Amino acid sequence: MPSRLTRTDIARAHERIAPFVRRTPVIEVEAGSLAASPLILKLELLQHTGSFKPRGAFTNLLSRQVPEAGVAAASGGNHGAAVAFAARALGVPARIFVPELASPVKTARIAAYGAELVVTGATYAEALDACQAHIAASGAMAVHAYDAPETVAGQGTVARELAAQAGLDTLLVAVGGGGLIAGCAAWYAGAVKLVAVEPEGCPTLARARAEGRPVDVEVGGIAADSLGARRLGALPFGLAEAHVAESLLVADDAIRAAQRALWDRLRIVAEPGGATALAAVMSGAYAPGPGERVGVLVCGGNADPASVA
Amino acid sequence: MPSRLTRTDIARAHERIAPFVRRTPVIEVEAGSLAASPLILKLELLQHTGSFKPRGAFTNLLSRQVPEAGVAAASGGNHGAAVAFAARALGVPARIFVPELASPVKTARIAAYGAELVVTGATYAEALDACQAHIAASGAMAVHAYDAPETVAGQGTVARELAAQAGLDTLLVAVGGGGLIAGCAAWYAGAVKLVAVEPEGCPTLARARAEGRPVDVEVGGIAADSLGARRLGALPFGLAEAHVAESLLVADDAIRAAQRALWDRLRIVAEPGGATALAAVMSGAYAPGPGERVGVLVCGGNADPASVA
Repeated sequence: MPSRLTRTDIARAHERIAPFVRRTPVIEVEAGSLAASPLILKLELLQHTGSFKPRGAFTNLLSRQVPEAGVAAASGGNHGAAVAFAARALGVPARIFVPELASPVKTARIAAYGAELVVTGATYAEALDACQAHIAASGAMAVHAYDAPETVAGQGTVARELAAQAGLDTLLVAVGGGGLIAGCAAWYAGAVKLVAVEPEGCPTLARARAEGRPVDVEVGGIAADSLGARRLGALPFGLAEAHVAESLLVADDAIRAAQRALWDRLRIVAEPGGATALAAVMSGAYAPGPGERVGVLVCGGNADPASVA
Repeated sequence: MPSRLTRTDIARAHERIAPFVRRTPVIEVEAGSLAASPLILKLELLQHTGSFKPRGAFTNLLSRQVPEAGVAAASGGNHGAAVAFAARALGVPARIFVPELASPVKTARIAAYGAELVVTGATYAEALDACQAHIAASGAMAVHAYDAPETVAGQGTVARELAAQAGLDTLLVAVGGGGLIAGCAAWYAGAVKLVAVEPEGCPTLARARAEGRPVDVEVGGIAADSLGARRLGALPFGLAEAHVAESLLVADDAIRAAQRALWDRLRIVAEPGGATALAAVMSGAYAPGPGERVGVLVCGGNADPASVA
């Protein structure tokens, strides 16, 4: 797959993964419930494993020759669960390296999908080191969470699907490592105004734009478990530079308020990263114009449900 | 509105209420996730107030002349919340009579929708007595939870909406007082095989069918707060006799398992009554044939989210 992604790459990825992923629905939420404007929510939290990540994982596993040693990833979160899920569905062994601090709920879920779980290292970086050592020794295939063309093409299938479901002027997307917004950028390519939203505690895209290139940032805050990549991917950066119109930051309080509103007004449990894009429009960080058709990608639901009520 | 409901009545109700209710989405869930067969879930728990009940409430308020005294209902649950919500949306005063044992979460929500809350009586029957006394004294309009043509026509709009979203062979619907399944029966009128599902603890339809008429039943179990009507409505009984193919009972354990599966595999929080129809197919009480396109109405999400994980 070329590093300059096109709609054709995304369409091809979509054909490959369609038997294995869900077509997630959209709901139009009337003006006054979540925001002054009506919003079109893409409910990607209903995807397998509770996030969009299986789209990229399946695209990797179906586009490349998987060695006998199987696949490997370092992640204590949504990417690890997605790789484990995709590997099981395709009958491929998976080894997932999880830092010791990962949430026990997410770790248990990765194990439940049948992956071999290796809990190692105090930090994500140490788990990643262990994963890379395993890959070097075994020949297992690495599945990158965001900085690989297959991953970005797979995440872009959510935009292709959404484009067939709703005509939009604008789409708000949360950013961590940048795989999801890069896939959306590659699909829409300017046809829809793309707005990137990051927690103040995880400003990888905002800092990359300010510096003119991806740089390491300190990450923290309530959405760090899903959006806390230390540095935006190089491939995502190029696509974001080409096709992302605005890059906004939101406070943790705004993210928490968005989570609570999704529960209170729609009975939707979103994780902090899944509510981050909505937080931009609810907090006023993004103010739609009159008649603007605004979509919000609700990209993950792996919260403790008790945390949203 | 005539007591013999037709598709025209439902279409007319739908036109009236469309500006005030959400068009809730459907999702097709692949074979092997919730059941051996694929299932089409109608996500009506995303409706305002977390259940289908606003469809009937709005139909009442928009079809009849609302007196100055406003509207009144007895309910500590989903119907009370829906009447309060609809009244607020239409600028009509509402008084909701709630038994002392009602869940504080649901009671608080009714009050949050701006209704005047009257907490009275140890049982639902006593709250209903107080409500009827208020109606007699004030001239307020009663909004019946299931045994009124407007209510049934309103609930039937969910079937009309679903028919436009998915072609089905079979639809599974939970039954309490019978308003929802009666509306579905009036809409589909045999065009889709309707399967009624009740908790073993709330067998109003099963007992009515056995006796040839609605009779009082003891109600209990985990779904009683939404499905615990003491007796099936007379109008629902007639429509169910005409158009409901099967009437099934499921155990509380099966309902709990369906709630957990909805969370585990879709990140959906359904209340027990909202998971009851799914419980029939997950438990094997209903066994779809090869290729049968089965829909499940997920009709309520007013659970404590901590209860499903």
